[in-house]
Amino acid sequence: MTGKHVLALSGGVGGAKLAAGLAATVSPQDLTLVVNTGDDFEHLGLTICPDIDSVAYALADLNDTSRGWGVKDESWQAMAMLRSLGEADWFNLGDRDLGTHIARSWRLRQGDSLSQITARLTRALGIAHAIVPMSDAPVRTQVGTAGGWLDFQRYFVKEQCRPVATGVRFSGALRAAPSPAFAAALESQDLGAIVICPSNPYLSVDPILSLPGVWEALRHRRVPVVAVSPLVGGASLKGPLGKLLAELGRPVSNASIADHYGDLLDHIIIDSADAADAGGLQERGLSVTVTPTVMCAAGDRERLARVALSAAGIETG
Amino acid sequence: MTGKHVLALSGGVGGAKLAAGLAATVSPQDLTLVVNTGDDFEHLGLTICPDIDSVAYALADLNDTSRGWGVKDESWQAMAMLRSLGEADWFNLGDRDLGTHIARSWRLRQGDSLSQITARLTRALGIAHAIVPMSDAPVRTQVGTAGGWLDFQRYFVKEQCRPVATGVRFSGALRAAPSPAFAAALESQDLGAIVICPSNPYLSVDPILSLPGVWEALRHRRVPVVAVSPLVGGASLKGPLGKLLAELGRPVSNASIADHYGDLLDHIIIDSADAADAGGLQERGLSVTVTPTVMCAAGDRERLARVALSAAGIETG
Repeated sequence: MTGKHVLALSGGVGGAKLAAGLAATVSPQDLTLVVNTGDDFEHLGLTICPDIDSVAYALADLNDTSRGWGVKDESWQAMAMLRSLGEADWFNLGDRDLGTHIARSWRLRQGDSLSQITARLTRALGIAHAIVPMSDAPVRTQVGTAGGWLDFQRYFVKEQCRPVATGVRFSGALRAAPSPAFAAALESQDLGAIVICPSNPYLSVDPILSLPGVWEALRHRRVPVVAVSPLVGGASLKGPLGKLLAELGRPVSNASIADHYGDLLDHIIIDSADAADAGGLQERGLSVTVTPTVMCAAGDRERLARVALSAAGIETG
Repeated sequence: MTGKHVLALSGGVGGAKLAAGLAATVSPQDLTLVVNTGDDFEHLGLTICPDIDSVAYALADLNDTSRGWGVKDESWQAMAMLRSLGEADWFNLGDRDLGTHIARSWRLRQGDSLSQITARLTRALGIAHAIVPMSDAPVRTQVGTAGGWLDFQRYFVKEQCRPVATGVRFSGALRAAPSPAFAAALESQDLGAIVICPSNPYLSVDPILSLPGVWEALRHRRVPVVAVSPLVGGASLKGPLGKLLAELGRPVSNASIADHYGDLLDHIIIDSADAADAGGLQERGLSVTVTPTVMCAAGDRERLARVALSAAGIETG
């Protein structure tokens, strides 16, 4: 018998869609959305948390769905001025988005924790659900390349994922405790399911799993762990997952996703386009759901959230 | 026999207009525009230098002439986001303007001096003339009120100059050396004239004069000091000068301006609407020019600059 609290682990854009679906399905007191902060970085004196912002904007219905990232009704006037002043322009900062970065950076300098700041920011945006940074200490994902280790945003945005990846590391992870709300959810007697959102396992979920004690807590859990695969039709829908898998010498398939999560995983949800993978995954002892996983509209997000919760035995009415 | 280098002391908006007129009249190597930094402040983690920006935007033709401050074609999206996040919104930050504040704050944190940053920023905006902060050390103008000392922007913007002023002080001034370019201009063998722009003597020019050694250097100068009065028709054209003079128990007239600068001044330029003041000013031993001083168009600024230079004996061809 397990409880009904849902702990979801999410990266940015793809994960944020399922996070929004979960928030539309599960009441605020029953959901903790833990978000990767390995992509965070300091840029032009601002602390930018792309994944937290993606999840927050998605839940507040502020996300730009046609561009696929950032805030809707965005403008780029500050960026144009920064460019004309000769400052770095490889990371595009929208004007509305900048309001968030300025507020966060200011409060961090005042000594508030990222958890406190995220709670304040999401409440101000009208979000009732808990969006929680994985840690209040800085963890920085870096990608190994022939030219050395690149900070994630340099690899992802500035270099457009062009360098061949030789490895991934999470600088600071060993000294970074899970955030208070993440630790509380892991230890909650009421925990009923853990959902791994369709984010990049290597770049977006692994930073969360690399925090001290998290992997152990998940292995010793008594609740189902359900992952939604980020692959669709044997390729990554968005981002560098396919390229990264190939460079790390792994097949671009759901077998690699299952391998990666190993014995953490009880259930995997794969896209209908990859139905042929189901047999092999079941042979590994996983239960498998085959369903459309591309989330275009709010209805897609909620339906997939219900599928994931149902796979974990959580009734959503 | 004096040289032809012109040193101008300026505050924000009104001073910036004459500064732009001087820049249109004097070649870059012959002009040093020293700008008040007493109005600078730290806000939401950004260092904002309103007077430097007003002068820079005016010289780069980026200033909004209808609003009277800030950048033209401005938008306010970051401010709207900051407001929705519950952050302080009493100081309105435009999106384009924010680009400047972010660049400056970032470079200050990197250890660059305000002089270096201002040189870089103005060069990037295509400004050939030297816009120089009065000091690289922080000086903060504060206005005494019944409720205590108010930082200048709190008095000026947040309180809209409503509190009765009991005094003005420049926190940090005694420890703040003139910036290298200001000191060099004061000591230049080629110095030919000092122009005090039509800025508030108490709030915008006094911070410059209060820096160690500046008053003495100006008193021992051998070149004419010409001030353009900020009063028009016995009132301040903009800002709190009239109210401040009355609260400090001084008449709102050019006699008070002349009193304030005392024996620093050789020549005062007053508006045609105040022609009746000329006799009294001459009786104090000042030479006086009566001319229209309201600068609406570029032509007005250049004409007034030529009048000021001519009063100092500088030929402008």
